[in-house]
Amino acid sequence: MRRNTSWRAVMTALALAMVPFSGHAQPLTIERFGSFHVGGRQVEISGKPVIEYTPTVGGAPLRIDPNGTYVVGQMYAQFMQPSPQRGAAPLMLWHGAYLTGATYENTPDGREGWEHFFLRRGWITYVTDAVERGRSGAAMTPDIFGMPIYLPTANPWERFRIGDGAGSHARGTVLPGNQFPTEPEHYLAFMRQVVPRYLGTDEDVLNAYVALLERVGPSVVIAHSQGGAFAWQVAQRRPELFRALVLVEPAGTGVEAEAARLKDVPTMLMYGDYVDADPRWSVIRRNARRFSDAIRAAGGQVEDVDLPSRGIRGNSHMIMMDRNSDQVAELIQAWLAERGLWR
Amino acid sequence: MRRNTSWRAVMTALALAMVPFSGHAQPLTIERFGSFHVGGRQVEISGKPVIEYTPTVGGAPLRIDPNGTYVVGQMYAQFMQPSPQRGAAPLMLWHGAYLTGATYENTPDGREGWEHFFLRRGWITYVTDAVERGRSGAAMTPDIFGMPIYLPTANPWERFRIGDGAGSHARGTVLPGNQFPTEPEHYLAFMRQVVPRYLGTDEDVLNAYVALLERVGPSVVIAHSQGGAFAWQVAQRRPELFRALVLVEPAGTGVEAEAARLKDVPTMLMYGDYVDADPRWSVIRRNARRFSDAIRAAGGQVEDVDLPSRGIRGNSHMIMMDRNSDQVAELIQAWLAERGLWR
Repeated sequence: MRRNTSWRAVMTALALAMVPFSGHAQPLTIERFGSFHVGGRQVEISGKPVIEYTPTVGGAPLRIDPNGTYVVGQMYAQFMQPSPQRGAAPLMLWHGAYLTGATYENTPDGREGWEHFFLRRGWITYVTDAVERGRSGAAMTPDIFGMPIYLPTANPWERFRIGDGAGSHARGTVLPGNQFPTEPEHYLAFMRQVVPRYLGTDEDVLNAYVALLERVGPSVVIAHSQGGAFAWQVAQRRPELFRALVLVEPAGTGVEAEAARLKDVPTMLMYGDYVDADPRWSVIRRNARRFSDAIRAAGGQVEDVDLPSRGIRGNSHMIMMDRNSDQVAELIQAWLAERGLWR
Repeated sequence: MRRNTSWRAVMTALALAMVPFSGHAQPLTIERFGSFHVGGRQVEISGKPVIEYTPTVGGAPLRIDPNGTYVVGQMYAQFMQPSPQRGAAPLMLWHGAYLTGATYENTPDGREGWEHFFLRRGWITYVTDAVERGRSGAAMTPDIFGMPIYLPTANPWERFRIGDGAGSHARGTVLPGNQFPTEPEHYLAFMRQVVPRYLGTDEDVLNAYVALLERVGPSVVIAHSQGGAFAWQVAQRRPELFRALVLVEPAGTGVEAEAARLKDVPTMLMYGDYVDADPRWSVIRRNARRFSDAIRAAGGQVEDVDLPSRGIRGNSHMIMMDRNSDQVAELIQAWLAERGLWR
């Protein structure tokens, strides 16, 4: 009930205000904010035809020779530094496949997202667009990273444990107690932020995350889905750059033979609801738990958070967008505070 | 001299601080900030093969059927609302071709950009990624918008009036008094934010800007290059949604036969240095001036700002990134204030 009331209040505010997302927000003091790109490498392109076109009404003809040197594999990051500052380290939010940093901004139903949540608690936040996506750009296709893959509207509904399996998008049915905002306008708002994904970028993505952490310094990293797999692998390369690692439904793991490299990185592993009933997510979590066991066997700490076991039900793969996203963020916040990373 | 000293101070701060971009910044009070997507349309894709792959270490095999419904042509916007609020309307910053909203964030040499400048003066700012670019996503290629075009490293150097014409990037030479930050690491920082451009998106871009203005309400729009041509065309469709229009080196115009539709939109038309000496930019400005004359003939106001004539020299096409970007922003700010749009 409380949920519905609150949603109605937000809709009323939306209808009244010139600026969207009124809600309950208090003003924030921001010491600094900004953006930059890190990483990347240079490649040479040759043998392509020159392109000629006349852009826009009233423009002048343009001749572009696409041959030459390009920088590819760079990554975009945006940061905000609040005051007072209460986090003991910067907090990074790494998104998953087919997505950008918008994952952590406002939710598809217009509430404040996890970026807001952690910023309001005094963390310096960094939101990134992984290599190949969003403001990180796209390298020449298909020459550099191959052809991208695209997700049609039904795919996340059925694959991210929102709907109840194959055909559920067409049926318009969801898993019992589903927390994702599935009203047509909200699901559309989510699909508008979906971007293509390339299969040939993993090594560049890993390098760019290392470059980001080298620039910013040791950080708390919250990483989702594909970003979680990258985070585990980056942490194996450079464990000293991680103060803590929060893996929200990671879609993969690190390299098991090198699990000991993670023994000093306090880690939370979190999955939402209906994981065991899903043929694919059950395998993914089993892999993540086996990898976590290997880290523990080497003396490391991985806290395994199964949300339904804690009475938090109905979470999809997109936990940071689910209606109870703040409740789950509180759980992460408390865990970080317990580890002395917030004062 | 002053410029060099200030730059050295920033570099020292950078070296000392955990967080980049120290500078002179005072804290900002932000009432609200956030992001959303607007616009777009649905398309059906069929006849494509199913894609199968296993993502990342420790993942589970994935089968993506790319056939189905897609939303394409949507646009991403990010806003910040400062306190106290002094602008009489929201202020939008629309970028040019091959670029994203990052255009207006920190400059390639790490200074605060125009987003910071106007936010610090109390304007609600909206920074967008035009359709097809950045966080707005990319529709299935080549099916929806054709194949994209890519800019190699030498292209903007030579085309944006930074270097002295063809071959200047290889020579490492610039126009006399050039203001763009051309140190190798800064030019690289600029190239990292360059994205591909599609030729088939104009109508979707125009529709998305209309959708944005309908959502936000009448605004001051500062638009650059290709974004300037779009802004003129959007303003012709919906003049009541524009409080003022600042066109920074627009790469095109509106439709001359409908110039009268702009008679109530106060407009500033601005170009930097070396325009007349450039065979392409001289044509573009001539077109823009002819279009401006048509607006004036219909009773409208267009203030023609030729920066060198005002003693502001050396500006490239990327005025908001040039070393004197704040000086030029002050000129825009004063013009808006004179029109009663800032209190």
